Amino acid sequence: MVDSCRVCESCLSGLEQYCSGGRTLAYNSIGRDGQPTYGGYSQKIVVDEAFVVRIPEQIPLQNAAPLLCAGITMYSPLRHWRAGPGKRVAIVGFGGLGHVGVQMSRAMGCHTTVLELQADKRLDALRLGAAAFRLTSDPECFSALAKTFDLIISTVPANLDLDAYLGLLARDGVLVNLAATGKPMTVSAAALLTNRRSIAGTRSGGVAETQEMLDFCAEQGVAAEVEIIGADEIDGTYRRLLAGDVRFRFVIDNSTV
Amino acid sequence: MVDSCRVCESCLSGLEQYCSGGRTLAYNSIGRDGQPTYGGYSQKIVVDEAFVVRIPEQIPLQNAAPLLCAGITMYSPLRHWRAGPGKRVAIVGFGGLGHVGVQMSRAMGCHTTVLELQADKRLDALRLGAAAFRLTSDPECFSALAKTFDLIISTVPANLDLDAYLGLLARDGVLVNLAATGKPMTVSAAALLTNRRSIAGTRSGGVAETQEMLDFCAEQGVAAEVEIIGADEIDGTYRRLLAGDVRFRFVIDNSTV
Repeated sequence: MVDSCRVCESCLSGLEQYCSGGRTLAYNSIGRDGQPTYGGYSQKIVVDEAFVVRIPEQIPLQNAAPLLCAGITMYSPLRHWRAGPGKRVAIVGFGGLGHVGVQMSRAMGCHTTVLELQADKRLDALRLGAAAFRLTSDPECFSALAKTFDLIISTVPANLDLDAYLGLLARDGVLVNLAATGKPMTVSAAALLTNRRSIAGTRSGGVAETQEMLDFCAEQGVAAEVEIIGADEIDGTYRRLLAGDVRFRFVIDNSTV
Repeated sequence: MVDSCRVCESCLSGLEQYCSGGRTLAYNSIGRDGQPTYGGYSQKIVVDEAFVVRIPEQIPLQNAAPLLCAGITMYSPLRHWRAGPGKRVAIVGFGGLGHVGVQMSRAMGCHTTVLELQADKRLDALRLGAAAFRLTSDPECFSALAKTFDLIISTVPANLDLDAYLGLLARDGVLVNLAATGKPMTVSAAALLTNRRSIAGTRSGGVAETQEMLDFCAEQGVAAEVEIIGADEIDGTYRRLLAGDVRFRFVIDNSTV
């Protein structure tokens, strides 16, 4: 996000991600000058100072880069739905978003569970702060964990079985869905009535909250785990990405662009 | 509701409607004594004092009766989702639930809009406190009201077009669905991501909140509008109910049972 209308109620509240006047994204948007935006895959980019954040020196640049998308996308819902000591949080999917979300949730004092399809992510999940790791392919998973979470954040790029995941929420629990697959999701009213549950959506974060997130990460030692690639490796890396072969984010070294 | 487990976390919080040990409903439940419950269609009923509320003398008994279901079912979500001065509330459906909800929402200081299919409910809606009345059959309705509500409570016993109603919510708006039709509802992730919206369910209220609701109604002059019938009129009245010929609740005079 490199600009927004700056005058709507959301912009004035520092929630530019919900700008009703239309945000300008870093690439493939039309800016105030009527020109398309071309993104940040370059050695220099001119951005209005209102949309610039400071990277704390404790976080190496390559580990900070994914925080500006995956990081803030996890941090904002954790804060908004009051993650904190005593809260029971589940992160669905332990990938680029999930592995940062687990670190943040743990740093906020939550009891954090990872719900995953792939067993080989267990050690990384526990290493990065998960108190528990459960395979959602295990038929016992959904009964064993019924009504035990206050907040579930789904990072998986697919439609969840919402009724099954709602069943994991305790009273007043919230299921936050980050993915927008384009395909309609189905949910039963009864799964929501029970325990006064909610399903919610959220969209990245505003500039001020992004700075707050970076400062939080620096203070708490939270960072994305990355593999650095050169510009000439992009095609091959994209194939690895499609195959799920990534731990946990690829970062392009812009000096090679 | 005439009993609950009284020891689960919800019961200890005065939220017996979410009792995880199993509530005992007034009819067709099995009580602590192992016997079925037969409801309140009689001149006397024995109920544990922990599940008895006091009807304030300002509310005639016949107008209070529906408050113990429709009333608390509206009051609890209005309170939980912080209805109050400055909040923009929409009530979907102006029937037994809706006509009480409108009075409560207005009494709490909200700007209250009724969304209805039937044009002939307009005058009653405005008389009972709605600031606006919109026909949902009007093709302009959903574009004219886009992003204008903080809280929408749907009382209609049918699955809504959730995406259309979510489109009416401003940032952080909540759509509370009271109906449980048994048929799955569909919703798109994008409708939730935009404006950080939520869909939630809710189930009546606890004993303490029911008493609070009755006291609120007495103080604010809120009551259900009813037509009293005798026991010998039940069959015909049921047919009227199915035909939608009711303003707004039928109450059986128990002295005729």
